[in-house]
Amino acid sequence: MIKRLTIIGVGLIGGSLARALKVTGACEEIVGWGRSPESLQRALALGVIDRAESDIAAAVKGAEVVVIGVPVGIMETVLRELKPHLDPQTVITDVGSTKGSVVAAAHKVFGFLPPRFIPGHPIAGTEKSGVEASFAELYRDRRVILTPDEDSDPEAVALVRDMWRQAGAEVTEMSVMHHDEVLAATSHLPHMLAFTLVDTLARLEEHDDIFRFAAGGFRDFTRIASSNPQMWHDICLNNRDALLKMLHRFSDELNTLAGAIEAGDGEALLETFERAKAARDDYCEKSC
Amino acid sequence: MIKRLTIIGVGLIGGSLARALKVTGACEEIVGWGRSPESLQRALALGVIDRAESDIAAAVKGAEVVVIGVPVGIMETVLRELKPHLDPQTVITDVGSTKGSVVAAAHKVFGFLPPRFIPGHPIAGTEKSGVEASFAELYRDRRVILTPDEDSDPEAVALVRDMWRQAGAEVTEMSVMHHDEVLAATSHLPHMLAFTLVDTLARLEEHDDIFRFAAGGFRDFTRIASSNPQMWHDICLNNRDALLKMLHRFSDELNTLAGAIEAGDGEALLETFERAKAARDDYCEKSC
Repeated sequence: MIKRLTIIGVGLIGGSLARALKVTGACEEIVGWGRSPESLQRALALGVIDRAESDIAAAVKGAEVVVIGVPVGIMETVLRELKPHLDPQTVITDVGSTKGSVVAAAHKVFGFLPPRFIPGHPIAGTEKSGVEASFAELYRDRRVILTPDEDSDPEAVALVRDMWRQAGAEVTEMSVMHHDEVLAATSHLPHMLAFTLVDTLARLEEHDDIFRFAAGGFRDFTRIASSNPQMWHDICLNNRDALLKMLHRFSDELNTLAGAIEAGDGEALLETFERAKAARDDYCEKSC
Repeated sequence: MIKRLTIIGVGLIGGSLARALKVTGACEEIVGWGRSPESLQRALALGVIDRAESDIAAAVKGAEVVVIGVPVGIMETVLRELKPHLDPQTVITDVGSTKGSVVAAAHKVFGFLPPRFIPGHPIAGTEKSGVEASFAELYRDRRVILTPDEDSDPEAVALVRDMWRQAGAEVTEMSVMHHDEVLAATSHLPHMLAFTLVDTLARLEEHDDIFRFAAGGFRDFTRIASSNPQMWHDICLNNRDALLKMLHRFSDELNTLAGAIEAGDGEALLETFERAKAARDDYCEKSC
């Protein structure tokens, strides 16, 4: 049981965690802090948090755990605001989609990654954002990745791990670099493709007709292009190297495919599609 | 009411049409023909067709309408087999994903597009294939595009139009070239991206880990990579020019995006993502 949990930034991710922990009774009190008073009041009105604090010092005072749920682009700013008010006993974690940049921000602000700051990332979300979109089941059977380092406090790791388990998630640990590479491949690259596809089509002259004749597959394929632009702006700038590496690799493969289409190389096309279908069917058998 | 409808190739598309027309009672008899006797017997056992014929002459004898539901890659072969047995009064249509190639195949086989051969394309499907995957609701509220030319028989167009309406679809007419461009953009390009993404990730060394940490967005985004490889091989080779044009346009935009990420040009990233989100939200408001 966590006595007091403070959520810094009560949006889809932080709000859903709060809801999940309320359902399981894993927290005595959940305090919310946010930049937007309107959004914070909505979180309170929706019963997502028990108390809304506009003052960050008051928000984290006496907190056993602080969960930072802000976009990675403002992580450093928020850590700097938090620093003077943090009790050394407080366990901190975050939910940022990039981990190298969060650790770098901690280094800038604290000079090192505090042993009780356990970077984390729940692999869950929807294309929506804001506390109104939050729901208690978001993390059920989803994975959460924690990226502690060799100086991390095992007790803090255990506490964060247990919190996410209470929210329904399966928790794994990996290195910061591995996290950022895996996410560049499975999340950041697909988002770039979806945004670019929709933008490419929207810029065609006959775009009205084009969207009119899009089928169900297109709807699913482009769902992630409705994601929060600011958040993805932040992710791109904060996982630049791993994302660029994946983008280049993808571009090379797409060029090879285009070459096979141009050359009428049916064998190469069939091989690629068969390999992709086998991999996707296999993934789906395990995880869908 | 269609007295006798013959479906040449009873898979997901042809089978679902048969099921839909059975539900609405729009056909007196549905005859099926296919290359695989096992698949044809399954169609009969499932009640999708009333009669299975392994001989193509017997299959189309006395048919008021013949629906050709084979992959576009074997369209010419099938038209050649059909030609000697077709009654001039029989209305023919197809369900091929590319229309320029179907019209070209008709020209090769008949010397022209027969006035009662109305090329068609239901914009519907799933990543599955085969008659087992067919279901009566596949075309409900979906669009069907017909691409008749100036010599097409209006009565035949009306009959095909009415058949698809009975199956629940909304029917539109457009030129062959416009169809192939629109589909290259909304269907063929996204399939290329999904196949290439999954194949790119599957070829990474750490591919097991990568797929293990993929979230729900990835599942939706890659669903179409489970589509039939042979069918997509055929589509690529039969809509080559329009698809290559879209692939190059997409590649250019993706390179521009990668350049913005590399340069840390946050403004350009935000603009692209905002434009894409607006277009996708707008599309979804109208069609999701």
